[in-house]
Amino acid sequence: MNAPADLPTPACPRPLPAAMLELLRARFGDQLSTARAVREQHGRDESPFDVPPPDAVLFCQSTQDVADAVRLAARYKVPVIPYGAGSSLEGHLLAVQGGLSLDLSRMTEVLELQPEDLTVTVQAGVLRTQLNQAVRHAGLFFPIDPGADASIGGMTATRASGTNAVRYGTMRENVLGLTVVTAQGEVVRTGTRARKSSAGYDLTRLLVGSEGTLGVITEITLRLHPLPEHVAAAICSFPDVAAAVQTTIAIIQMGVPIARCELMDRHAVRAVNARDHLGLKESPLLLMEFHGSQAGVAEQTAVVQELAREHGGEDFQWAATPEERTRLWAARHHAYLSGLQMRPGCRAVTTDACVPISCLAENVVQALDEAEAAGLPHFAVGHVGDGNFHVAYLIDPAQPDERHLAEQLNEQLVMRAIACGGTCTGEHGIGLHKQGFLVEEAGDGAVAMMRALKAALDPDQILNPGKIFQP
Amino acid sequence: MNAPADLPTPACPRPLPAAMLELLRARFGDQLSTARAVREQHGRDESPFDVPPPDAVLFCQSTQDVADAVRLAARYKVPVIPYGAGSSLEGHLLAVQGGLSLDLSRMTEVLELQPEDLTVTVQAGVLRTQLNQAVRHAGLFFPIDPGADASIGGMTATRASGTNAVRYGTMRENVLGLTVVTAQGEVVRTGTRARKSSAGYDLTRLLVGSEGTLGVITEITLRLHPLPEHVAAAICSFPDVAAAVQTTIAIIQMGVPIARCELMDRHAVRAVNARDHLGLKESPLLLMEFHGSQAGVAEQTAVVQELAREHGGEDFQWAATPEERTRLWAARHHAYLSGLQMRPGCRAVTTDACVPISCLAENVVQALDEAEAAGLPHFAVGHVGDGNFHVAYLIDPAQPDERHLAEQLNEQLVMRAIACGGTCTGEHGIGLHKQGFLVEEAGDGAVAMMRALKAALDPDQILNPGKIFQP
Repeated sequence: MNAPADLPTPACPRPLPAAMLELLRARFGDQLSTARAVREQHGRDESPFDVPPPDAVLFCQSTQDVADAVRLAARYKVPVIPYGAGSSLEGHLLAVQGGLSLDLSRMTEVLELQPEDLTVTVQAGVLRTQLNQAVRHAGLFFPIDPGADASIGGMTATRASGTNAVRYGTMRENVLGLTVVTAQGEVVRTGTRARKSSAGYDLTRLLVGSEGTLGVITEITLRLHPLPEHVAAAICSFPDVAAAVQTTIAIIQMGVPIARCELMDRHAVRAVNARDHLGLKESPLLLMEFHGSQAGVAEQTAVVQELAREHGGEDFQWAATPEERTRLWAARHHAYLSGLQMRPGCRAVTTDACVPISCLAENVVQALDEAEAAGLPHFAVGHVGDGNFHVAYLIDPAQPDERHLAEQLNEQLVMRAIACGGTCTGEHGIGLHKQGFLVEEAGDGAVAMMRALKAALDPDQILNPGKIFQP
Repeated sequence: MNAPADLPTPACPRPLPAAMLELLRARFGDQLSTARAVREQHGRDESPFDVPPPDAVLFCQSTQDVADAVRLAARYKVPVIPYGAGSSLEGHLLAVQGGLSLDLSRMTEVLELQPEDLTVTVQAGVLRTQLNQAVRHAGLFFPIDPGADASIGGMTATRASGTNAVRYGTMRENVLGLTVVTAQGEVVRTGTRARKSSAGYDLTRLLVGSEGTLGVITEITLRLHPLPEHVAAAICSFPDVAAAVQTTIAIIQMGVPIARCELMDRHAVRAVNARDHLGLKESPLLLMEFHGSQAGVAEQTAVVQELAREHGGEDFQWAATPEERTRLWAARHHAYLSGLQMRPGCRAVTTDACVPISCLAENVVQALDEAEAAGLPHFAVGHVGDGNFHVAYLIDPAQPDERHLAEQLNEQLVMRAIACGGTCTGEHGIGLHKQGFLVEEAGDGAVAMMRALKAALDPDQILNPGKIFQP
């Protein structure tokens, strides 16, 4: 397989020709920028890769803007790279062949809210926190919450999930329909507002997670959920990571409808303590949330407390007020940034394996044992209710050996996950970083099928080329 | 649009050549049949269409059998039509161009049950009742239950759902991975046993609902669910259909996690009374089921009883014992056959619209008013918690006028559903019957995208050609 430490060798660059630049300027005026700082800002994400920035950045304001730009790009066979909040982790935004970055961050309109149907349609640049502010007054919320305040378009394109997925599903389950600009610059609408449909191929689900390589997602229709009547959050510390994970496994196998079930290892706890002054005991913990009626929540927590006790967990510490709860979850969402601050100047190589729940304990424990043995600074967090966990190895970018070591640890971790029926990526996507792993996981036949789909919808390879697999 | 009353004009027949028949015989012996009775049995389903039967039927016993057969078919460019239980409703199984029927009903092995992960892998011919018998001992169940005892392969291929979808989702949410034979006769595995993944294109979801046109599904990995601790079922009669549907809308908007919420109109009640001697009051009713802890179920039923009362519903009649419950749900599952018996010798034209929940009352009521006004015998049932309802028009196959009238009513019903953001098919699929509606619903652009995907994966159009759209 490809050594995942290396960037896949990029195909020939396809820079933006002057004639196209002129046409773009004529159509878009100062929505277009070629300023170096703007291009550089759009030429990297949270991944540890450096590649040349895109040749230009277009700040789109509408689906029509995107369609007009893609039609021009199609004529000149120039790559287009959709850009939302810039928070992807696997090199999704990097202009490996040059081309035009389509910044959708100004497309922030909540187009239609239908509270009675629990649906909403938004433009791709709406951020997840903005969406939740916009629907809260109707007694609704949107549960998917990757750590960053990502855009709904980006979350759709990477099939994101987060802490609530154990109960509410991922973007796969919560996207009902899309407006998409095809490689030919056509505007296509997929799905409906009905909860289910058997009408033809599931284009919506094909585009969710396609990382900008099959179409540019400009509008998204989502399922919303009623705000729970009652919410309770608690922390439970464990003697070791294995005990915390075994508790999680028991919770899931019992069918407890827990809303959130997050693992933090002692390094992660130390990091959020340092940044957010939480004063948590520095041992592995589960951070849990329960949604339901007062009685329902009481029932769930009684079961979970009993399971935790059986595995050596300490008494629950409750986040009693909504403010305390918010503070706790904010700390969880900052865990990544907090972790980075443990080693100033570092970058993180972040793993994202997701395994069948019964294999979770051995997968997490072995990964952390290997990281300790290697002596590389690291921390671990996990959406363990889903079987998904992240180890972040903190590397000094000036030390190629450290990068290499981190990638080696990642590879061991991923191959173990695949061997037990899991996946190399639960929620971050393939991007540039996991292309070798995708082949290991899916096999040549499935990847050939993916390539055939790509060739059918984007024959000139202009849509975010070089991501998921090489052209 | 195409008048849906007419079968799409079939492309030229592509019969099975003698040379291929010989090779099939050599490889498969008496697994192959060309007997007229066998071919005819495989040449129709529950749809009201008559077309010539396939040229031969192959009783496959393994993925390898399927792969070998498809490779031969690919060589001779002969259509292959996968066949499970023969219970599809929209002409999916009909050999419109001739070819080879691949009967998977002997592939009935439960390959791997992992109770601790709530997953199971089965061969495509396993029936849904067989699956539930096989996993019950582990305290698990598989909730998807179309009316017929369909095969898991067929349910996957049509993106089936049924009465539990309002709580547990459809095949879309419950299929984790597949083994598929491609148009080239290659065996490909999609998905993993992990609960979520962002690894490349979602081939699993593309194949779920593809109606045998993108690959032959031979094995399916499914999510299972813990048997609920407590189950309660109740019937509530209403003065009219509108009141029953308004109650449903309120239940869903309140976020009550009801497990089943089924509407039967008075004709459907009369039909199941006649066949199953239930003695139900012959007015519209909701047939409901609640899953959870004892306290959770009590809470849900209290809320729902209050909502029903507000809408003029009568007191709940409880199915007190598991036997009574089973009898009730068996009657619901027989409603289609019971309805057919109301008009001996008839065939049914069945609608399958699914709409956003807020539009459900007006959609159901108008459809039934129109059916009454037209004077055509009919009955209605609905998975109303999902916004999905079926009107079955009972037509005399000897009277073309009746077929035409039924199709006209269906068209009015579907166009109304599409206009309010719904779909022409919630769970039956497109098959032959709804190809015009698919274009109305999805638009030319989306259908062009579907055609491009088909052309990419099956360039010689051998996989169930003529279904979903014309070659």
